[in-house]
Amino acid sequence: MSVLVEFSMTPLDKGESVSTYVARSLEIISNSGLPYKLGPMGTCIEGEWDEVMAVIKQCYEKMNSDCNRISISIKADVRSGKTGRLEGKIQSVEAKLGRTVNH
Amino acid sequence: MSVLVEFSMTPLDKGESVSTYVARSLEIISNSGLPYKLGPMGTCIEGEWDEVMAVIKQCYEKMNSDCNRISISIKADVRSGKTGRLEGKIQSVEAKLGRTVNH
Amino acid sequence: MSVLVEFSMTPLDKGESVSTYVARSLEIISNSGLPYKLGPMGTCIEGEWDEVMAVIKQCYEKMNSDCNRISISIKADVRSGKTGRLEGKIQSVEAKLGRTVNH
Amino acid sequence: MSVLVEFSMTPLDKGESVSTYVARSLEIISNSGLPYKLGPMGTCIEGEWDEVMAVIKQCYEKMNSDCNRISISIKADVRSGKTGRLEGKIQSVEAKLGRTVNH
Repeated sequence: MSVLVEFSMTPLDKGESVSTYVARSLEIISNSGLPYKLGPMGTCIEGEWDEVMAVIKQCYEKMNSDCNRISISIKADVRSGKTGRLEGKIQSVEAKLGRTVNH
Repeated sequence: MSVLVEFSMTPLDKGESVSTYVARSLEIISNSGLPYKLGPMGTCIEGEWDEVMAVIKQCYEKMNSDCNRISISIKADVRSGKTGRLEGKIQSVEAKLGRTVNH
Repeated sequence: MSVLVEFSMTPLDKGESVSTYVARSLEIISNSGLPYKLGPMGTCIEGEWDEVMAVIKQCYEKMNSDCNRISISIKADVRSGKTGRLEGKIQSVEAKLGRTVNH
Repeated sequence: MSVLVEFSMTPLDKGESVSTYVARSLEIISNSGLPYKLGPMGTCIEGEWDEVMAVIKQCYEKMNSDCNRISISIKADVRSGKTGRLEGKIQSVEAKLGRTVNH
């Protein structure tokens, strides 16, 4: 089982520069021990359902401690009988194309 | 505190008609007792973080019991000091416009 | 052909109350003549690809005229040989359940 | 102006393995000449509004030519006075953390 999640969490009441808040979330994600990958529009994490949701909840509780309004986006792709999809999905597309791409 | 969530959950391995699976999720949501609103692209639920996430997990476990690949989208809008936002957000826009709109 | 789109567009640099900006978008959507439905987390529009994308672009240009940072979410569900899905998808779920639900 | 978009486009009527269809989209993106970055859950592109939307439309038209039902997710982050954010946003988070992270 692989639950692959991309999520982003942004305060709406802290002005247009929010990287301080993103960095706090990333610290939590990094400390979780789950495999992750930071991207330009969100962070991907892979694990079991309860594992990834526990990390997202921790990020939420931290942000909720000093932000009045928070916007959260979570996309999950769940697939039975697969693992290692943080890298595997990209490799699968590259295999179909017969070449590497920017990633 | 109001955690307002819209989510959709779709199997990728069951062909293009998926309303049977959406109906199963809606049964779970309806039985949860949380206020909800079914829309054309997802279902909105309002509650505390743990309440809404518990409902989404139940929907996930049901779908995961007989689907091999599942795509999930969750958007959350969290706001301190507010409640009743399933209706309140729409009313707030209508108040700004000075008239009702389709909803 | 039915391109059913739900979208939300939010300034990040205008504080936590953004209904003024949502109302401006809704005015544009309403004036487009396309069928639409305002929900708690976004607005659904149905039409051809170019039609719905033209409306979203108009909303973007208006918001971009006085906001420095904008967050946009667009989800589309495209299905051949169908129309009227703003209402049809909800009715289809209700038919499977054998009863009406909150919508 | 920087319009940074992450999008994914998936057929719902082609079974659980969809990398063939993702590869076709990536070919179009790569040929567009716009800076892009393939991730586990979507592809990020940066450009002007019309540029990125033209690429997404091309991907849509290709997929629509042989798929009956398509699910599309587009997230955009628009910011005035910035460019190079495919890499810049990640670097900004790393600068706040004082160290590199997985990306």
